[in-house]
Amino acid sequence: MPNYQFETVKVTVHPDGVAHVELNRPKKLNAFNNQLIGDVLNVFRTISDDQDVRAIVLSGAGRLYTAGLDLSETQLKDKSSGDIARLTYAKRHHLQWFQSAFTAIEECAKPVIAVVHNGCIGAGVDMVTAADIRYCTKDAYFCVKEVDVGLAADVGTLQRLQKIIGNQSFVRDVCLTARNVKSDELLREGVVSKVLDTKEQALDEAFKTARLIASKSPVAVLGTKHLLNYSRDHSVAEGLAYTVTWSSAMLNTEDIPNSVQAFVTKQPAKYSKL
Amino acid sequence: MPNYQFETVKVTVHPDGVAHVELNRPKKLNAFNNQLIGDVLNVFRTISDDQDVRAIVLSGAGRLYTAGLDLSETQLKDKSSGDIARLTYAKRHHLQWFQSAFTAIEECAKPVIAVVHNGCIGAGVDMVTAADIRYCTKDAYFCVKEVDVGLAADVGTLQRLQKIIGNQSFVRDVCLTARNVKSDELLREGVVSKVLDTKEQALDEAFKTARLIASKSPVAVLGTKHLLNYSRDHSVAEGLAYTVTWSSAMLNTEDIPNSVQAFVTKQPAKYSKL
Amino acid sequence: MPNYQFETVKVTVHPDGVAHVELNRPKKLNAFNNQLIGDVLNVFRTISDDQDVRAIVLSGAGRLYTAGLDLSETQLKDKSSGDIARLTYAKRHHLQWFQSAFTAIEECAKPVIAVVHNGCIGAGVDMVTAADIRYCTKDAYFCVKEVDVGLAADVGTLQRLQKIIGNQSFVRDVCLTARNVKSDELLREGVVSKVLDTKEQALDEAFKTARLIASKSPVAVLGTKHLLNYSRDHSVAEGLAYTVTWSSAMLNTEDIPNSVQAFVTKQPAKYSKL
Amino acid sequence: MPNYQFETVKVTVHPDGVAHVELNRPKKLNAFNNQLIGDVLNVFRTISDDQDVRAIVLSGAGRLYTAGLDLSETQLKDKSSGDIARLTYAKRHHLQWFQSAFTAIEECAKPVIAVVHNGCIGAGVDMVTAADIRYCTKDAYFCVKEVDVGLAADVGTLQRLQKIIGNQSFVRDVCLTARNVKSDELLREGVVSKVLDTKEQALDEAFKTARLIASKSPVAVLGTKHLLNYSRDHSVAEGLAYTVTWSSAMLNTEDIPNSVQAFVTKQPAKYSKL
Amino acid sequence: MPNYQFETVKVTVHPDGVAHVELNRPKKLNAFNNQLIGDVLNVFRTISDDQDVRAIVLSGAGRLYTAGLDLSETQLKDKSSGDIARLTYAKRHHLQWFQSAFTAIEECAKPVIAVVHNGCIGAGVDMVTAADIRYCTKDAYFCVKEVDVGLAADVGTLQRLQKIIGNQSFVRDVCLTARNVKSDELLREGVVSKVLDTKEQALDEAFKTARLIASKSPVAVLGTKHLLNYSRDHSVAEGLAYTVTWSSAMLNTEDIPNSVQAFVTKQPAKYSKL
Amino acid sequence: MPNYQFETVKVTVHPDGVAHVELNRPKKLNAFNNQLIGDVLNVFRTISDDQDVRAIVLSGAGRLYTAGLDLSETQLKDKSSGDIARLTYAKRHHLQWFQSAFTAIEECAKPVIAVVHNGCIGAGVDMVTAADIRYCTKDAYFCVKEVDVGLAADVGTLQRLQKIIGNQSFVRDVCLTARNVKSDELLREGVVSKVLDTKEQALDEAFKTARLIASKSPVAVLGTKHLLNYSRDHSVAEGLAYTVTWSSAMLNTEDIPNSVQAFVTKQPAKYSKL
Repeated sequence: MPNYQFETVKVTVHPDGVAHVELNRPKKLNAFNNQLIGDVLNVFRTISDDQDVRAIVLSGAGRLYTAGLDLSETQLKDKSSGDIARLTYAKRHHLQWFQSAFTAIEECAKPVIAVVHNGCIGAGVDMVTAADIRYCTKDAYFCVKEVDVGLAADVGTLQRLQKIIGNQSFVRDVCLTARNVKSDELLREGVVSKVLDTKEQALDEAFKTARLIASKSPVAVLGTKHLLNYSRDHSVAEGLAYTVTWSSAMLNTEDIPNSVQAFVTKQPAKYSKL
Repeated sequence: MPNYQFETVKVTVHPDGVAHVELNRPKKLNAFNNQLIGDVLNVFRTISDDQDVRAIVLSGAGRLYTAGLDLSETQLKDKSSGDIARLTYAKRHHLQWFQSAFTAIEECAKPVIAVVHNGCIGAGVDMVTAADIRYCTKDAYFCVKEVDVGLAADVGTLQRLQKIIGNQSFVRDVCLTARNVKSDELLREGVVSKVLDTKEQALDEAFKTARLIASKSPVAVLGTKHLLNYSRDHSVAEGLAYTVTWSSAMLNTEDIPNSVQAFVTKQPAKYSKL
Repeated sequence: MPNYQFETVKVTVHPDGVAHVELNRPKKLNAFNNQLIGDVLNVFRTISDDQDVRAIVLSGAGRLYTAGLDLSETQLKDKSSGDIARLTYAKRHHLQWFQSAFTAIEECAKPVIAVVHNGCIGAGVDMVTAADIRYCTKDAYFCVKEVDVGLAADVGTLQRLQKIIGNQSFVRDVCLTARNVKSDELLREGVVSKVLDTKEQALDEAFKTARLIASKSPVAVLGTKHLLNYSRDHSVAEGLAYTVTWSSAMLNTEDIPNSVQAFVTKQPAKYSKL
Repeated sequence: MPNYQFETVKVTVHPDGVAHVELNRPKKLNAFNNQLIGDVLNVFRTISDDQDVRAIVLSGAGRLYTAGLDLSETQLKDKSSGDIARLTYAKRHHLQWFQSAFTAIEECAKPVIAVVHNGCIGAGVDMVTAADIRYCTKDAYFCVKEVDVGLAADVGTLQRLQKIIGNQSFVRDVCLTARNVKSDELLREGVVSKVLDTKEQALDEAFKTARLIASKSPVAVLGTKHLLNYSRDHSVAEGLAYTVTWSSAMLNTEDIPNSVQAFVTKQPAKYSKL
Repeated sequence: MPNYQFETVKVTVHPDGVAHVELNRPKKLNAFNNQLIGDVLNVFRTISDDQDVRAIVLSGAGRLYTAGLDLSETQLKDKSSGDIARLTYAKRHHLQWFQSAFTAIEECAKPVIAVVHNGCIGAGVDMVTAADIRYCTKDAYFCVKEVDVGLAADVGTLQRLQKIIGNQSFVRDVCLTARNVKSDELLREGVVSKVLDTKEQALDEAFKTARLIASKSPVAVLGTKHLLNYSRDHSVAEGLAYTVTWSSAMLNTEDIPNSVQAFVTKQPAKYSKL
Repeated sequence: MPNYQFETVKVTVHPDGVAHVELNRPKKLNAFNNQLIGDVLNVFRTISDDQDVRAIVLSGAGRLYTAGLDLSETQLKDKSSGDIARLTYAKRHHLQWFQSAFTAIEECAKPVIAVVHNGCIGAGVDMVTAADIRYCTKDAYFCVKEVDVGLAADVGTLQRLQKIIGNQSFVRDVCLTARNVKSDELLREGVVSKVLDTKEQALDEAFKTARLIASKSPVAVLGTKHLLNYSRDHSVAEGLAYTVTWSSAMLNTEDIPNSVQAFVTKQPAKYSKL
């Protein structure tokens, strides 16, 4: 079993195959400093290969989901000096590394259900748009805060927000104005697919869904997320062709006769680890 | 006129240019065996070129739209043995052929309006996401059932469902949990654009829309579907460039002066067959 | 300051950085003849580089937003004769030029908020789908009218409408039937993100949003629109990679320390022109 | 064993797994009429699945490889009349069908070695650019003849010629001037990779290469052609990702231990049919 | 007839349909200042639509083809100061405009044959890689000079050089070292397709080819260049699909029966202007 | 300075900015076991960021460049057993990791010149096709060996070989037959751009080129490689647009005035580290 001791992220793996990943820097409102970014990256790269985990619930400890980028620990607020090309090149690595932390959620082999309570600000939106499913509490709000500090959201929101919902007029409004979007609007626009009254209820609901997913064939769940990711970024024809290549191997799995047998005998199916 | 005698699909062509295509294996709940897959493929390839057809209504005969894959006639449920590469390669052809049956709906030159009543399960969702417009009855529900039998949906749902609606949180939820989605949620999420009380009313509404489409210029309708298909899978710039090439020829059609003349004289326009 | 004297478009630049662009051919119901198309192209190409403009409100003067293509001034309604290849080639230029007028809105470096009142017909839909944000009045309706005159919408609607909202069943319905879509349906489907009672209120609301955007860092607003455009048409991975290249230069801007300083001192930030 | 009786194409399957496919309309100089196009399509679709075939040599019977399109049987030479849109639409099907005959060579699961002698004119170039490997005789010449009859090569040359060699200046020269390109230039530019003195020698050389390929693991050969096709049309990164999906299944084949064992024991490997 | 009076480019249109475009700033070695860039842009945009022109020969007046960017008139050599984001943004427009001058050659509806004599340096390589066919003199040499002045070639060489020839090892060598490449190596690598002894002979050869092209059906030549451009940047499958749309209209041209008739009667074909 | 102590790769950084990277497992003929793959990955990821390195020469120590995959240490040769889906999934990680080692060469910010002597077999071809420039010795030969052991080349050859040269007939021949390709054919086909008599001479030549590159502006060299990589995998139009974004920042570098000043004063330019 992997070592899940991280300074700013707490990981709990339940025997039913559901892992709980919590942003755990509550005194700093789960603001993203390099430690938290690195921990998120490591957690999701590790958990993707953990055979004991089949689904993940992602939430934040403390008062709110996250206050976004930790401005007190970033150098962005300082004036730059020196050769422009060298300053520019130097920024590439940090940005790529920061992006990779959230891309690790998207590429994680196991589905991730994000539960947002209270504020989800700036980099928090970049983060949760990389999850598979989003729930939130009634008091939740999202804020694409970046324009307020002089920058374009650069770690995922501008790419993913418009691909997880359909309404461009809404997307551009919230990205250009940095206004708060409350839970009822989040639900109406499809940013989240469920709103629950309290954080406890939202977590309960997320765990329920996660356990349901964890009870399914791991081969089927893996393929479903993998093919949804691929197909989002390709034409229908390319998605179908890729599916042929993926599925023609996976269709030979024992999980299929196991599933059918379970259905016939009305027993829950048992699947080997993946 | 083409021969539309098929064992498991019923085709009726009305004089107003609307064809009714019905899944017609009601005793087996319109479950997809190879006969039904092949009949769907043949019907849509044939009807695409039928000059007497200008719009199509697609529905299912019997108790429900379709129960999905006919597990009793598939070999998926049997354990595989032999060389893995050869087993894998052998699956490619059947999968490509199965996919082509639903792609024939998407590529059909005439618009297709699907009417779903009661259950639309597994392969049924793969099928109707390839239609242009979807209506359903109040008692209808969709179920992306595949994960329950150990596989990822491989004949279209994972590609098309996320391209016919915008809400990824919903798409991933339903594909990963195989839960039933009822008509009110289908409408809210845009999977269907109308819910009617009964199957009769839903068919009436679909025929009404189909007749309206059938009354328009065949050149205009053809181009509209063709360009919508192309543009879905390309950037805006590529879609516009392709439209220039398509439309610079089609804009020379007699249908345009005919339409304008009809507008001026307040007579219904008459268009030649296409 | 650029010269904004156009025959059929009225431009007013306010000191707060918001420009008002009005279709101004009210006697002809703002129908698109070549003059209006050319004026739109010139206005948006010019205003994109105008350092005094930071956000744009686009509306139509007179009774309705626009009646669409001016059939009285188009040659489309006349029968074509001559060599088919030459007729076809001859249509390419006009079509490319017409498309470029609306693409200029999409490529305009400043966000554009369209306000639609009463009818928005045919080419009007092509136009406003190229804007960033859409509001409308209660009495507004959209009509993708093209199939009624024998052609497929060829200057943007078939590309952009399906990319600004998620519901394909709705998109294909309205493009294939040419039916009127009223404001409540426009809002529900996300074609517009706000409906106001009157044109005056809708303009007020649009100006409010535009002023808010105009008060932000010009570098942040520029990057946000630019990266949203790019990412719409690319995979998430390509969007992220492009953002690294864009932002690693832009993150060196003085607007960031200026913004942070303003936040700390609770003074409104002052930004240089871009 | 499939039935290979075709009117205009002769197929011979040798026991060593090499098939010989010959254009066999010598009195008409193997000119492409609909019969020949259809036979080519059927041969390659059939042979792709023939387990007894592992490599294919493609040549032409009679005086030359092919004289290109059979102008005596095409309607292209007649003046068109009628509605431009309808005339245009009617051409689509024939063109798609004609293209599919040569695409069947590219998509054929077995490698195809084309042997060209004497003239390879017009549609012949479209055809052989779809093969995997090209040899020719010393007296061979290619001619992209299409501009001489008023049309752009439309069944493959304009797509594939520039992808099978690197020299655009040469490609555009020969496509725009319709000049004859002789065997030494064909070799220098890489259009063919071998020139032999006589047709007999060229066939011998092609059969030697084909037999060598036929002696290899069928799984390895299949994958190599499949992945070369895919990677030609995708970025390096996409090609690599697709290869992971393809190969992670295929690497489990018994052909690998069989090959290694054969290498160790210095015996020729035996592979099952694919 | 268009007005071809330009300060730094000389245009001569011959009655046989061949135009001669000459860089004509010989005292400055045809170095690219803004005047020359603008003139190139205007010439090729204009000539693309000139019905009297069917093919173009492009060469340079004076001692060499071009010395590249005119460093004496560029601001690149001055140190930049000010806000990095604003400096960066300000460079975008000039760069896009500069690129568009050479893209106008690629997009010119008529084939362009470049004739290079003596030096073709820096921006000159960017320019001629946008032509269709390249010839040069024995004393010619190319130099991708940009790295010697501290920049990456940014107006076409890094995109097009690797797409007009196949040898990446050569491309990267010459782009990274800025070494001179002489005519024999240019020919061997396919950068040019013919080397002639003198400039006069090279021009003669180019005019001969241009006249040959100009004698063909304008519809066929237009389509051939257009489809080659499109297919270079798309997969084979997309190129074929686009060709169906393009050609199904163009195949109705009178040029085809005219060409066939000319062939039968052994008279030169006469084609209308395009 | 980074630590370059690796078990199977030797790294020497010269004061002139050229690093020498040597495969250093000569007793095993530089065969790729996991140690060597991992060392290659680490070396190129590290050296990419080493400010003291501006160009890299890559060669192999001992008798030949590399014998390819170390079959004695791979599990490929053993028969697989277990669930096919799980076996397949388990192969993904190793394959992705193996590919990443060679992709690290392509993505290395500094140009890499590969020098091949004697044999370059199997995975060796996958490796050197990821370098920027290839030289070899007269006794060198390449062998795409994979089909001989039952697999398709899966770590780069099938993607990159056809993108570094233009001749598909050659590429498919060598990939399907596993034949040895000698130095004269390698040169003729452009796989290498120089052949030298001995390994010593080949290294001398490579170091000469590397030192020349190392003497140029680091900003210019970085951009040239970066933009060549990007443009290889995108259309010309996308490559140009990306270049605008990259270069509009980089053109502000001090390296440009420094370069121009050096040119004027005929002194070698001095550039800061990047």
